[in-house]
Amino acid sequence: MACPSPFPDGDFVATFDPRLFRESSETALALLEEHLADHSVRGLNLTDPAVLLGAARALMTTESRHVAKFDAKRLGAILDLYIRTGIPVHSPGYMGRQFSGVVPLAAVVDLVSSVVNQPSSFYEAGQLPNVAERIMAEELNRFIGWEPGTFAMVTTSGGSLANLTALLAARNQHFPSYWAEGTAAQGAGGRPAIAVGADVHYSVERAAGVMGIGAGQIVRLPLNARRQICVERARAALDEARARRLKVFCLVASAGTTAVGAFDPLDELAALARERNLWLHVDGAHGASLLVSDRLRDRLRGIEQADSLTWDAHKMMYVPAPCTMLFYRDRQHSLGAFRQKASYVFDEKPDIYTELDSGDKNFECTKRPMIMTLWTLWAMFGPSLFAQKTEYLCRLTKEAHRILESEPDFRTLHVPEANILCFRHHPAELEDKDVHRFQVAIRDRVKQRGTFFVSKVDVDDVAALRVVMMNHQITTKHFRMLLDEIRRAGQELLGTERTPHQRTGHE
Amino acid sequence: MACPSPFPDGDFVATFDPRLFRESSETALALLEEHLADHSVRGLNLTDPAVLLGAARALMTTESRHVAKFDAKRLGAILDLYIRTGIPVHSPGYMGRQFSGVVPLAAVVDLVSSVVNQPSSFYEAGQLPNVAERIMAEELNRFIGWEPGTFAMVTTSGGSLANLTALLAARNQHFPSYWAEGTAAQGAGGRPAIAVGADVHYSVERAAGVMGIGAGQIVRLPLNARRQICVERARAALDEARARRLKVFCLVASAGTTAVGAFDPLDELAALARERNLWLHVDGAHGASLLVSDRLRDRLRGIEQADSLTWDAHKMMYVPAPCTMLFYRDRQHSLGAFRQKASYVFDEKPDIYTELDSGDKNFECTKRPMIMTLWTLWAMFGPSLFAQKTEYLCRLTKEAHRILESEPDFRTLHVPEANILCFRHHPAELEDKDVHRFQVAIRDRVKQRGTFFVSKVDVDDVAALRVVMMNHQITTKHFRMLLDEIRRAGQELLGTERTPHQRTGHE
Repeated sequence: MACPSPFPDGDFVATFDPRLFRESSETALALLEEHLADHSVRGLNLTDPAVLLGAARALMTTESRHVAKFDAKRLGAILDLYIRTGIPVHSPGYMGRQFSGVVPLAAVVDLVSSVVNQPSSFYEAGQLPNVAERIMAEELNRFIGWEPGTFAMVTTSGGSLANLTALLAARNQHFPSYWAEGTAAQGAGGRPAIAVGADVHYSVERAAGVMGIGAGQIVRLPLNARRQICVERARAALDEARARRLKVFCLVASAGTTAVGAFDPLDELAALARERNLWLHVDGAHGASLLVSDRLRDRLRGIEQADSLTWDAHKMMYVPAPCTMLFYRDRQHSLGAFRQKASYVFDEKPDIYTELDSGDKNFECTKRPMIMTLWTLWAMFGPSLFAQKTEYLCRLTKEAHRILESEPDFRTLHVPEANILCFRHHPAELEDKDVHRFQVAIRDRVKQRGTFFVSKVDVDDVAALRVVMMNHQITTKHFRMLLDEIRRAGQELLGTERTPHQRTGHE
Repeated sequence: MACPSPFPDGDFVATFDPRLFRESSETALALLEEHLADHSVRGLNLTDPAVLLGAARALMTTESRHVAKFDAKRLGAILDLYIRTGIPVHSPGYMGRQFSGVVPLAAVVDLVSSVVNQPSSFYEAGQLPNVAERIMAEELNRFIGWEPGTFAMVTTSGGSLANLTALLAARNQHFPSYWAEGTAAQGAGGRPAIAVGADVHYSVERAAGVMGIGAGQIVRLPLNARRQICVERARAALDEARARRLKVFCLVASAGTTAVGAFDPLDELAALARERNLWLHVDGAHGASLLVSDRLRDRLRGIEQADSLTWDAHKMMYVPAPCTMLFYRDRQHSLGAFRQKASYVFDEKPDIYTELDSGDKNFECTKRPMIMTLWTLWAMFGPSLFAQKTEYLCRLTKEAHRILESEPDFRTLHVPEANILCFRHHPAELEDKDVHRFQVAIRDRVKQRGTFFVSKVDVDDVAALRVVMMNHQITTKHFRMLLDEIRRAGQELLGTERTPHQRTGHE
């Protein structure tokens, strides 16, 4: 190593210059303003990864011995490529996924978070984020209805991690020696198992596989015609699981499901959970935000009886991903998911500061202060911003369903309860055996044409087209345009299918 | 529900106005520029949470029926409070934690990420982020040394999640039926166990508790005088574990440890792992970044023999948290941590696009495109930015150690291998029995005085003061100022201790 020098003298120091920060911010802002103002109807501009790799590589400096000088043109080209190749979440052509064009102010708050860099698992490292978590817990609990001071909320990096955390708390409560002794702890009483609706998000099954419950010990509860857990048949399924020596300790309900946006009947499931001594976890990643609306809250009737609730603000509260909240009805349960000591972060003697730490309740040690985007929007605009947008999206989805009902070449699969709608295109000439691959092929073709972006989902093992209305720029006019686009794709496909047969497999 | 309307007519629409984005950005930029330019020496301004709660509540709109009008003054006050109450990561007084003042351009990229909102577990949702992951994997592998095309890298939300993911891949490889059958899968052959250095990060023990291995099945390997895993004694500890019917399947090495920044001898541990058929996971959350420096790379000699490696770019690559990379030596192993299907995200037939998806390899479904900050810095400035800053910080830490060695009232505990340094203040009049609480009390008092922010750690069960040099604005002059501050605190404490005895407990 070279002779020690007490001063940083490398050319790297210039990269920290605040003036460079201003200059690069201006480059970004100009591009972003233009991007936000573009409401043209467009879908996904899907680029061959090899081509994009080449384009990205070509934008990189080749300087390696020294720090390359700041090149505003290079930065502009990088950011432009980034923006252009993304899903256009602000366009009315985007109907495909559950993430939203964000309220732009939330992104500005994220900029501040990235500069001040306050990982927020510990109060001393992020004082305002920890206080804002307390406030948002209280604010949102007004729509849940627990007694102040009796419940708890922690933020964590995404709905999958929140689901895992809740299931760990449930597991550790029902099997107190599981944390320390792991697999050795049980034996008598059957193998631990988790009951879920058949349409539950894949992260729940994944969590079971992660935590040593065994993904095979998932008891799938049958759904009714509305694709909700059917409570009566659930009872029978639980009995049957007991007969197979599975010890179900947790029931996971969805509010709503990823596939079609169905809300399980929480009231009745809570009664069932009490009856069987099960932890009731509600995966409200998508739909918990409906609680904020007086008109839509009813979908989650019974939510106050849940033991835990996953709530993604990065879906229907329109902030950048991830911003996930995990609520516990019983404050004490929030301490049940993890147990550990580490003298460099956990203090021996709790005080008024460490009382706000969340590092013992959330999985992460370093955690982004994700609550700041949500709290700032709430503080600046109030709850009505969220209620209004969500109400519009749900109203629009209902309208879209009504439109489909009047079109003979489309088949609906459910009455939408939120902003997700699944359906199939079914022209008269389509044979039943081809329905599945026809929908997949339409999805692909619509995506390739680039005007609309929709997704697909299997409903009862047959593919369906799926739209998620996340963008309030979308009107029924755009939905009708989409249907025309689907018809066009369908006609092309049916034309194609009459000639070389082997092509269909690749569509 | 009201009569369906095809147009969004609420006052919420105005919150999405691009001009509002520009206006709020200007408010933020002005505050951030000032913040970045302030290099005054200051520590933590720790506020009573109740006071901060009141201040934050007072900044919130009370409007709930309508969307409150944008109020630039309110926004300025919120952001100002956010900035003022954070740890001043850009100040030379900040020596306490492992997160850094970021390269400001990285924060600008984060702003873009938050606006374009491209969750990056799937190529179609975030094309450039997925391509940038490939590029960074290749770029950083130049310092690891694997054959191109044979290894894999995924990003994930923090080092704890990366460690869990790697341990899951190891668990599933050694116990192939664990994922589906969980706890029922083993029995014969002993209980699964993980061997770690005694100073391993708490997330590893936590991961064991999470994944059903049992936090009690952690085999702690003894350390040598440099606080590295002692390879000879490790052999004996593994033998002893086998005798207790523990089936160790994974060895976790640290590069470097959180406590003192010690680097375990990877070369020798890799040989041991091969000999015993163990998965070698290296937690390089803190220290893997030293690989980028020609002068420091040697600390990780043998890294190419690891099965997996956790590498946090949000520590010594100076980007906002979190930005964690998890490398696998064997590309196939990256598919081993999770198994699932979900028709709304995973396609039946892989193609050139889905080949870049990471949703089957990382825990998250919705994942922030965290690589974009790192890749953009790399593309704009090249590797030298990182190498230079890290070399300076390590040089500075060595200098600080040299200074301590010449001060009779300080005791060093280790020769620093990176940028973490632990020591104790030990004035002549201090009795041995008081050493532990004296260090804790000094840490608290220094923190309260607000000029410096340092942390503490227990080394061999006795508290020590700990500095982490993350800021290149720090020079040896500041370190000497810190020592004076510590002496002042010590004198006050020794004075205090002679009068009412019961006070010490609260220091």
